[in-house]
Amino acid sequence: MEKSNIFDKIPADLTLESFEQIGGNDKILIERIVSKAHVTPEGQWYDQDRSEWVMVLKGEAKLQFEQGELVHMKAGDHVDIAAHCKHRVAWTSTETETLWLTVHY
Amino acid sequence: MEKSNIFDKIPADLTLESFEQIGGNDKILIERIVSKAHVTPEGQWYDQDRSEWVMVLKGEAKLQFEQGELVHMKAGDHVDIAAHCKHRVAWTSTETETLWLTVHY
Repeated sequence: MEKSNIFDKIPADLTLESFEQIGGNDKILIERIVSKAHVTPEGQWYDQDRSEWVMVLKGEAKLQFEQGELVHMKAGDHVDIAAHCKHRVAWTSTETETLWLTVHY
Repeated sequence: MEKSNIFDKIPADLTLESFEQIGGNDKILIERIVSKAHVTPEGQWYDQDRSEWVMVLKGEAKLQFEQGELVHMKAGDHVDIAAHCKHRVAWTSTETETLWLTVHY
């Protein structure tokens, strides 16, 4: 049984946000994302065909929703975003890496 | 957007293991489990129709697989258990709550 640790192997170079599949199959994608100061470009939105359950494990971030709501996410916070609910990452910490766990389903 | 924190609202009474759905739909189940000294009864195995991705977020535990392997899980450790891969919880900490995040898919 292959065991991994979600806090391990944080890329040293985070010029680009890091996306890594850590589980799932052809139906669902379980992914670790590492951000540091990354945001979704102003005016752009994620508009996804699948639902996305997402939790912050370390660091902090702000998710913005098309209706204007801003959700401040800290370690342990999770939201369940329905398919086609438009959202963007408005802010991630510049001080430390922000580790996300997402399930696209 | 409803935000919850996975470390919140740990049941005070953990006589029984706590299972709580925290995401998903009719296809997948995202669940928080809180154990304290709970184990799968000796000789019993989970034999599931769906795959299960599971991570320990707090505490520690040992997962046993039918082939004999024992996997010691600490905070951040995750495994992806295929459907019908028989396994059981052989041990969870008696000192502190063990918090699991599981995705049944």
